[in-house]
Amino acid sequence: MITLEGIEGAGKSTQRETLATTLTELGIPFLQTREPGGSPIAERIRALLLDPAHKGLCAQAELLLVFAARAEHLDQTMRPALEAGTWVLSDRFTDASFAYQGGGRGIPAESITGLESLVQGELRPDLTFLFDLPAEIGLKRAKARADLDRFEAETLEFFERARQVYLHRAKQEPGRFRVLDATLDVEQVGRHVRQALIDFVTRMQSSGQ
Amino acid sequence: MITLEGIEGAGKSTQRETLATTLTELGIPFLQTREPGGSPIAERIRALLLDPAHKGLCAQAELLLVFAARAEHLDQTMRPALEAGTWVLSDRFTDASFAYQGGGRGIPAESITGLESLVQGELRPDLTFLFDLPAEIGLKRAKARADLDRFEAETLEFFERARQVYLHRAKQEPGRFRVLDATLDVEQVGRHVRQALIDFVTRMQSSGQ
Ligand SMILES: Nc1ncnc2c1ncn2[C@@H]1O[C@H](COP(=O)(O)OP(=O)(O)OP(=O)(O)O)[C@@H](O)[C@H]1O
Ligand SMILES: Nc1ncnc2c1ncn2[C@@H]1O[C@H](COP(=O)(O)OP(=O)(O)OP(=O)(O)O)[C@@H](O)[C@H]1O
Ligand SMILES: [Mg+2]
Ligand SMILES: [Mg+2]
Repeated sequence: MITLEGIEGAGKSTQRETLATTLTELGIPFLQTREPGGSPIAERIRALLLDPAHKGLCAQAELLLVFAARAEHLDQTMRPALEAGTWVLSDRFTDASFAYQGGGRGIPAESITGLESLVQGELRPDLTFLFDLPAEIGLKRAKARADLDRFEAETLEFFERARQVYLHRAKQEPGRFRVLDATLDVEQVGRHVRQALIDFVTRMQSSGQ
Repeated sequence: MITLEGIEGAGKSTQRETLATTLTELGIPFLQTREPGGSPIAERIRALLLDPAHKGLCAQAELLLVFAARAEHLDQTMRPALEAGTWVLSDRFTDASFAYQGGGRGIPAESITGLESLVQGELRPDLTFLFDLPAEIGLKRAKARADLDRFEAETLEFFERARQVYLHRAKQEPGRFRVLDATLDVEQVGRHVRQALIDFVTRMQSSGQ
């Protein structure tokens, strides 16, 4: 399981294409998906979560909706693929809950860890790309792109707190994370992403996994 | 906080009227509400939960959606009322999660207890009416009433398991629960409900609460 993480406008969806192209070249069967969402009911929960009309949604309800969508996503999409030996490439996963609902909204990490165990059991991503950049730059990119959803309407401080949680988690788990400077141009970031993926696959293959 | 519990067709919504009438006669300000639902976003989650098209919804997602709706219901509706000194009369609450998602779906009680603490803190109902009857009779009543929602389409065994969890919880907390024989006719059940409520209020008042 490979996940892409970072705040809004960091370039996750852009670089997902690079990863997809590289996996294809390497002959690795994979499934592309995203969170929140990735299954029919999870996409309905996503709509509920992102709707700017739901401004007053309380932090706990938001957290529980995110994990409800994740439970469905795992049950309907991710686990069946992984069990069939297909790699899964997800645009966001549980690190985003620690960053947004934890760092952003202030929910204690232990509450999130509890839900992570409940929903995922032992399942964790094998490789996570963190696209790191100042919130100001990310938000500028996201704003230039389209109408803002409920999260994108949050303050700079919200996204700076989310960014710091991401960086902290990357430091705690250096084996899983690849932190990339997302302020570089698309091609440069793409070259780093591609190289990191090739290194990972080479290491997996030489260790016989 | 007063809650009404029991399987489908037990008579909760019917007897909520009796309770409402009695509270009004006693001059007690109260708010009537229901779960899942009871606030705008929670009602949207309810629609998602009850939609018979969502047949494949996994048990964990169902549990998390129920608690997401509850978090909203508490935040938007129940806590503000309770803090203002208004009584809250809810058609179902967390006992239903233990009965349906626990007994019915087989989720371990500890997982549900964890979510209960996360979402409710120390808040628990003060008085719970359990309308007890065999699942067969309840389902017959519910079927005669209207089209079946996703839960009502469940098997007799599902509701018998839910019933047993309700009865078990009532035995564990005899101070909070009033178990009523819901096979009696509407008027007889109504007389028991009314008397139990008057006794409760009298006891509350004489203990100076
Ligand atoms: N390295 C980059 N330099 C400049 N612009 C970029 C770069 N990467 C992506 N962009 C542009 O920034 C915008 C946001 O990129 P993208 O949608 O990939 O971000 P994202 O991380 O998926 O954001 P979100 O979390 O909102 O989905 C897009 O318009 C994209 O073309
Ligand atoms: N004591 C009773 N005897 C016979 N019929 C009853 C009795 N109480 C309620 N009913 C009828 O049974 C049906 C279900 O009752 P009600 O809607 O009150 O149940 P409920 O517990 O709220 O069910 P649900 O969980 O599905 O909302 C209604 O048609 C109602 O008129
Ligand atoms: Mg994106
Ligand atoms: Mg009812």
